Amino acid sequence: MPMESVLRYIEANQDRYIEELKQFLRIPSISTAIKHRPDMDHCAQFVHEELRRIGIPRVETFSTNGHPIVYGECLEGPEKPTVLFYGHYDIQPVDPLELWTTGPFEPTIRNGELYARGAADDKGPVWMHFKAVEAHLKARGSLPVNLKFLIEGEEEIGSTHLDEFIQNHRDLLKADVALISDTAMFNRNLPAISYGLRGLAYFQLDLKGSNRDLHSGSFGGAVINPNFALAQIILSIKNTDGQILIPGFYDDVLSISKQETKKLSQLPFDEENFQRDLDVPELFGEKGYSTIERLWCRPTLEINGMYGGFIGEGAKTVIPAQASAKISMRLVPNQDPDRIADLFEAHLRRITPASVKLKLTRMQGGKPWVTSTDQPSMQIASCAFKKGFGKTPAFIRQGGSIPVVATFRETLGLSTVLMGVGLPDENAHAPNEKLDLGNFQNGIVTSAYFFQEFANIEK
Amino acid sequence: MPMESVLRYIEANQDRYIEELKQFLRIPSISTAIKHRPDMDHCAQFVHEELRRIGIPRVETFSTNGHPIVYGECLEGPEKPTVLFYGHYDIQPVDPLELWTTGPFEPTIRNGELYARGAADDKGPVWMHFKAVEAHLKARGSLPVNLKFLIEGEEEIGSTHLDEFIQNHRDLLKADVALISDTAMFNRNLPAISYGLRGLAYFQLDLKGSNRDLHSGSFGGAVINPNFALAQIILSIKNTDGQILIPGFYDDVLSISKQETKKLSQLPFDEENFQRDLDVPELFGEKGYSTIERLWCRPTLEINGMYGGFIGEGAKTVIPAQASAKISMRLVPNQDPDRIADLFEAHLRRITPASVKLKLTRMQGGKPWVTSTDQPSMQIASCAFKKGFGKTPAFIRQGGSIPVVATFRETLGLSTVLMGVGLPDENAHAPNEKLDLGNFQNGIVTSAYFFQEFANIEK
Repeated sequence: MPMESVLRYIEANQDRYIEELKQFLRIPSISTAIKHRPDMDHCAQFVHEELRRIGIPRVETFSTNGHPIVYGECLEGPEKPTVLFYGHYDIQPVDPLELWTTGPFEPTIRNGELYARGAADDKGPVWMHFKAVEAHLKARGSLPVNLKFLIEGEEEIGSTHLDEFIQNHRDLLKADVALISDTAMFNRNLPAISYGLRGLAYFQLDLKGSNRDLHSGSFGGAVINPNFALAQIILSIKNTDGQILIPGFYDDVLSISKQETKKLSQLPFDEENFQRDLDVPELFGEKGYSTIERLWCRPTLEINGMYGGFIGEGAKTVIPAQASAKISMRLVPNQDPDRIADLFEAHLRRITPASVKLKLTRMQGGKPWVTSTDQPSMQIASCAFKKGFGKTPAFIRQGGSIPVVATFRETLGLSTVLMGVGLPDENAHAPNEKLDLGNFQNGIVTSAYFFQEFANIEK
Repeated sequence: MPMESVLRYIEANQDRYIEELKQFLRIPSISTAIKHRPDMDHCAQFVHEELRRIGIPRVETFSTNGHPIVYGECLEGPEKPTVLFYGHYDIQPVDPLELWTTGPFEPTIRNGELYARGAADDKGPVWMHFKAVEAHLKARGSLPVNLKFLIEGEEEIGSTHLDEFIQNHRDLLKADVALISDTAMFNRNLPAISYGLRGLAYFQLDLKGSNRDLHSGSFGGAVINPNFALAQIILSIKNTDGQILIPGFYDDVLSISKQETKKLSQLPFDEENFQRDLDVPELFGEKGYSTIERLWCRPTLEINGMYGGFIGEGAKTVIPAQASAKISMRLVPNQDPDRIADLFEAHLRRITPASVKLKLTRMQGGKPWVTSTDQPSMQIASCAFKKGFGKTPAFIRQGGSIPVVATFRETLGLSTVLMGVGLPDENAHAPNEKLDLGNFQNGIVTSAYFFQEFANIEK
């Protein structure tokens, strides 16, 4: 029973694992804030040293034009399969600070949950895998597989320098499967393996009318209001049935198979509870699809922000000179973000009223991804979850995006296992982010079993 | 020649008039800012003392629940007609301060123009009439008419307490005509008397979706985005041809007579220059009307501001919980702001998507006004302009609103003469507000002639 000593080690070191995670969480590694640059370097160094501490023989920190990437490897022999673990040490900003019950960088346990920025996204899950590796190495002296670590510091700002790094280090990163824990369980009682992600195409749109703000009494009736032009454009890119009106937008959308429709409908999704939690009068989306299909398998277009004119207290009778919007689309296989951006831009140029000037800025893109669930690596992950959580995980998709997964496939030819231990209410990106310590513990065991079982995969 | 001594007095005291106006302009009487409350009291007192100084025998400052109203009267005899002069001593805020060439409260003359906040709106024009009165009283010992002054301090914040004051002081304010200089000339070479004003109905609209901002990946496709609902509403209240879609909105609109259409078309309006000045790709508005008709005689609906979600630098993938808009309409005779507000509210309740909650706040209202140009008071004003500016003034309407004009008619039965000496580029409400000192001088003469000639009106 080679796992017995590993499980005993995990059990025996439980408290120390949490204390060490707290140290990781105390570092304010906010990648988007320039003033936290020293913290980013400090955090990369902390990850580097931790990998050495748990027994990884080769650890290297690579500088980029942004934040450092930490690479580690523990090679047990060319006959063994290789797992590439990806995670990120950077975190989201903490505003609004006043909504935190305890400080975002003062990790605190309440009711079995560890509160801190990064606890769930992604320091806790990263730590979970580190500690599973430590258990193997310390309890048995070796790993059942070859293991490579790729820990970046720019996930929260679009992984700006990661693709280039992967392109330039294909041999170094060669592996048989990629492993990521940056996704969620289906619900508190049901762990999940994700087999699909949506992609992203994000834009800023600026409309310019007159060369200055105008008095709406003196000029109202003579010129277009950019706010109105913006509303007009919005209704020309998406209709009130939730359909996106950009010509060609749906051309490459992979339709949902009957088999998948059936499987998705069998998931224990409580639509009433979902609606109640959001406190909306009704759910809304593209006609002809279930809520889950709309969330995971259908593309969307959202106005993430819009702004024009006077928004202060009281009244100001102004026709603003400019209106702006942040518009993004979630893409699904096989939509390509660059092609979608071209279609969007061409459509915008066609539909923008002649009375305003349009400026379109392409901001971020990421490819969608879907894979089959019957691959051996997926089945091994499922078995590992059964042992770690005592439950058969659900196979689900995610509505969000992890662009590196498509890069792994395209650049390294890798399939990725998305091992979800997050909770839907873990407040990632929000105040009072937290990690369920029961899940953390179960996740370490799951990870340890995954490495153990993956050793037997046919190469 | 009874006017000779008056004109000589005006000529001789020209420089002193300007120096005194500068003192008036140095008082930062911003009515909307609580911290300027002492300045408001100080400014009311300054007006009070000035009226005494120029020889008005009865001056009284009335407290309101807002800023004081200064009343003055100089009665020459019941056989003489009575003019009620209205003006305001409050001014707009000065932001953005960095765009002022010289400080807004450091009156400075450059190229024959006096720069300061309030120079054009409305301290300069008020001063013009004060100084015409002074010339009559000092040069001749009496006024040709009975004169009443009503100078308020809340014009820039909706004249909140003025209507009530007028209601409660009908006898005190009894007169034969009202006189206001708070409008503009048609252009730099053509003074104007306005015979029409638009009314106003101003609203704030808040749309609430979910109870919190949502991640657009995790939730995009399941709920409505309030930004989208707002765009949908905007297109349901005004179409892309500039027509307002509120049922009943146009019911009471007075159509433009053929005669007026002809007169308006004869005004020296340079449409090309107007467009070039605003630097817009094209002019835009309701089909079937000329630009001037759209500006003066047709109602409009504008989105003065709108806001929802993330508007900072960069990208944030959020579905906002709320979107808001400031929406106002300029009304024309005989639209009633209260009825329009009811129609708007009913329409909004009908068209707002069921997936968001609507909150509508009524903010300001003001009645439109139009009068005939062949009244004796209008003709007298025209003659006065000819003498003061050496030019026959144009009869025009204004696109903006001065709600007190409708109150004067309804509560006091008064016709109003709108004697426009402002310039279209005087920057009222904007940085570098200015007053043309030539027009100021001509305006004093015009005012003096108006009082002189109005004495002969048939009572």
